[in-house]
Amino acid sequence: MNPYITGLKCTKCHQIYKINEVKTTCPHCQDEGILDVLYDYKTLKEFFNKPYLDTLQDKTMFRYKLLLPIDDTHISEMLSIGGTPLYSSNHLHHLLKIKQLYIKDDGQNPSGSLKDRASAIAVLRAIEEGHHTVSCSSTGNAASSLAAQAARIGLKSYIFVPKRAPVGKLSQLLIYGAHVISVDGDYNETYHLSKLAIEHFGWYNRNAAINPYLVEGKKTVALEIAEQLHFNPTDWVIVSVGDGCTIAGVYKGFYDLKQLGLISKIPKLLGVQSDGCNPLVKAFESNQSLKPVEENSLADSISVGVPRNPIKALYAIKHSEGFMIDVSDEKILEAMTLMGKHEGIFSEPAAAAALAGLIKAIDLKIIKHDQSVTIINTGNGLKDPKNAQLATKPPLLMKPDLNELIKHIEQKGDQ
Amino acid sequence: MNPYITGLKCTKCHQIYKINEVKTTCPHCQDEGILDVLYDYKTLKEFFNKPYLDTLQDKTMFRYKLLLPIDDTHISEMLSIGGTPLYSSNHLHHLLKIKQLYIKDDGQNPSGSLKDRASAIAVLRAIEEGHHTVSCSSTGNAASSLAAQAARIGLKSYIFVPKRAPVGKLSQLLIYGAHVISVDGDYNETYHLSKLAIEHFGWYNRNAAINPYLVEGKKTVALEIAEQLHFNPTDWVIVSVGDGCTIAGVYKGFYDLKQLGLISKIPKLLGVQSDGCNPLVKAFESNQSLKPVEENSLADSISVGVPRNPIKALYAIKHSEGFMIDVSDEKILEAMTLMGKHEGIFSEPAAAAALAGLIKAIDLKIIKHDQSVTIINTGNGLKDPKNAQLATKPPLLMKPDLNELIKHIEQKGDQ
Repeated sequence: MNPYITGLKCTKCHQIYKINEVKTTCPHCQDEGILDVLYDYKTLKEFFNKPYLDTLQDKTMFRYKLLLPIDDTHISEMLSIGGTPLYSSNHLHHLLKIKQLYIKDDGQNPSGSLKDRASAIAVLRAIEEGHHTVSCSSTGNAASSLAAQAARIGLKSYIFVPKRAPVGKLSQLLIYGAHVISVDGDYNETYHLSKLAIEHFGWYNRNAAINPYLVEGKKTVALEIAEQLHFNPTDWVIVSVGDGCTIAGVYKGFYDLKQLGLISKIPKLLGVQSDGCNPLVKAFESNQSLKPVEENSLADSISVGVPRNPIKALYAIKHSEGFMIDVSDEKILEAMTLMGKHEGIFSEPAAAAALAGLIKAIDLKIIKHDQSVTIINTGNGLKDPKNAQLATKPPLLMKPDLNELIKHIEQKGDQ
Repeated sequence: MNPYITGLKCTKCHQIYKINEVKTTCPHCQDEGILDVLYDYKTLKEFFNKPYLDTLQDKTMFRYKLLLPIDDTHISEMLSIGGTPLYSSNHLHHLLKIKQLYIKDDGQNPSGSLKDRASAIAVLRAIEEGHHTVSCSSTGNAASSLAAQAARIGLKSYIFVPKRAPVGKLSQLLIYGAHVISVDGDYNETYHLSKLAIEHFGWYNRNAAINPYLVEGKKTVALEIAEQLHFNPTDWVIVSVGDGCTIAGVYKGFYDLKQLGLISKIPKLLGVQSDGCNPLVKAFESNQSLKPVEENSLADSISVGVPRNPIKALYAIKHSEGFMIDVSDEKILEAMTLMGKHEGIFSEPAAAAALAGLIKAIDLKIIKHDQSVTIINTGNGLKDPKNAQLATKPPLLMKPDLNELIKHIEQKGDQ
């Protein structure tokens, strides 16, 4: 384990535990007592600075290994996770009339999503703790990223999915050689079975929120954004929100850098949900505790009726002086086409929600035209071609006749 | 245009032309007279060396801009193409009992395939030559990569597809905002209509083989492999072969480096086709000119009955002292699961053909156990989830019952 980690702090009762004293959540607060990893910033600050970072050859997330809950024994065996491009927008910032827009494309990760950053930590922690098998219950990006990292590093993976899981998503898991248990029941029954099996077999548990270490992997996206912008991050950073772990990770990354004196201010975080599943938006707006909602959004990666990390997520919004916003599925599909057409980036719906949120936030004057913005593209659109079809019109069907084609194109005036 | 380019040489009649004197193929040899770009290696050799490369910050394919047929005006606006990871195998080399195995994962390119390297050159050449629209006829990776690069750089794209093109592949094009013309006819009619339309409207032509510059983009995969291996490339480099442009590009990259004195020997190239569509294997084996064959392979990206670049492809095999081999579709699917299960990499069928080829070449003792090998993973498996399903068994369906699960897992002895 990283020697600069000093302990784990319960986000609910604020009790501090020694590393290894607890494995998942706070023993007092149970599942609600999600733990936060504490670092010895004072010692790190003495050398973790720009000149130090400039000496590093590693361009992956592991360049920040001194801020991660791992030792470095197996890093060289991992896939190339992180180090994803931060694009300065070529066209969208003109269209939206804002000063500057960056897009952090985490869809270029090995399994196609930001979740690779968390799963990388999961498999490395599993090895450090002597496990041979990792497990989670999910059909989405968490599962496929875990299956990929486990395959690469030589661990077994058991993935629990509800029977209704689409075959397309299953195929990625099966190709990575995961043991996939399709549960003849709903998502709750699936989750429950996975929990019992993980306890019974003693597998490493990658079910997100209760694992204090996964957020630390996710935070590397913020560390990269800051470093790619020479430690002058944009006024706003926008990310879509499901169970709240990703936005918590983004906050934690900027928080680390502020403690280390590398940035002067944490960017305002805009969290975006679909209005078909917006429990955190409601909790933010009402300033009350979270109430479960139904899951009615096509953006499956953020369609989480009972987010498991509301405390960290809302803390991130509040302490960055940010905002939560919801957008319709229609606007999410529209954002997918805008991102593709104007920047050449193919986003899955949950990822495109961030752009839809930006557009709404500009309309509502939450984000001003003279502010700079970074959008995090959390997942590759190739993961979900069906919704890409929904977002676009079918192509023009024509006979193989040049004259007809010329007539058509000239009529449209679009040569 | 790059000032170190000295001309274009016909691969058939060997006539040399000045740059700008010809646009596509050799005027004498017509479509068969594919041109090769010539460089002033003597001048380049004076400074294009390891210390020079070490000074470069750019990790994308454009770090090699002095070996590319472009000027550098618009490079900063491009997506992050190339700079893909070269993985040292964790497990497969043990399984295959070879000394060393590397996997160059070009599936991590922005649109998910190696073709991004060629399309990047296409859009930059289009801009330099004053075009506003680029065009090609394809349903595959060439089309989606062209649509993506055109969107990013602000060019229009017209993509011609046969009516039978699967909607999944179309969705990627439509998301990138391409004008997609679905032709009510077969592939030949589609290609013919695109040719007439390109001529009529004066669009930039990205139909691969006849464009002398696209191979130059593709060669950057070889430049990267060599640099990532500190200019000691492996004994063999393996890549699947469709119309022959990619393997020609791989050869050209190593050729450049040999001329510059950066490597001492060009690796042996192993070209792999499906036995359902193997015209280049037949031409190689018989040492006769190419005969068209039917297209009966599920590896759609290499299912090309009439390869348009046979001369360059067979030249690459011969002059690298390499070999051509074919594998069954069944072995391709098996290779997909091996790559996923043992290295955590999801390949599309055409990409996995390279691994299937390696396995067969070891069996046939073409590749020896004491030799080192690099496989090029040309495309992301997410492009083709349907074949991933074909390659794998459906998951185990279970009731949400822990005891039943325990019984099952203990019976399998696979915890």
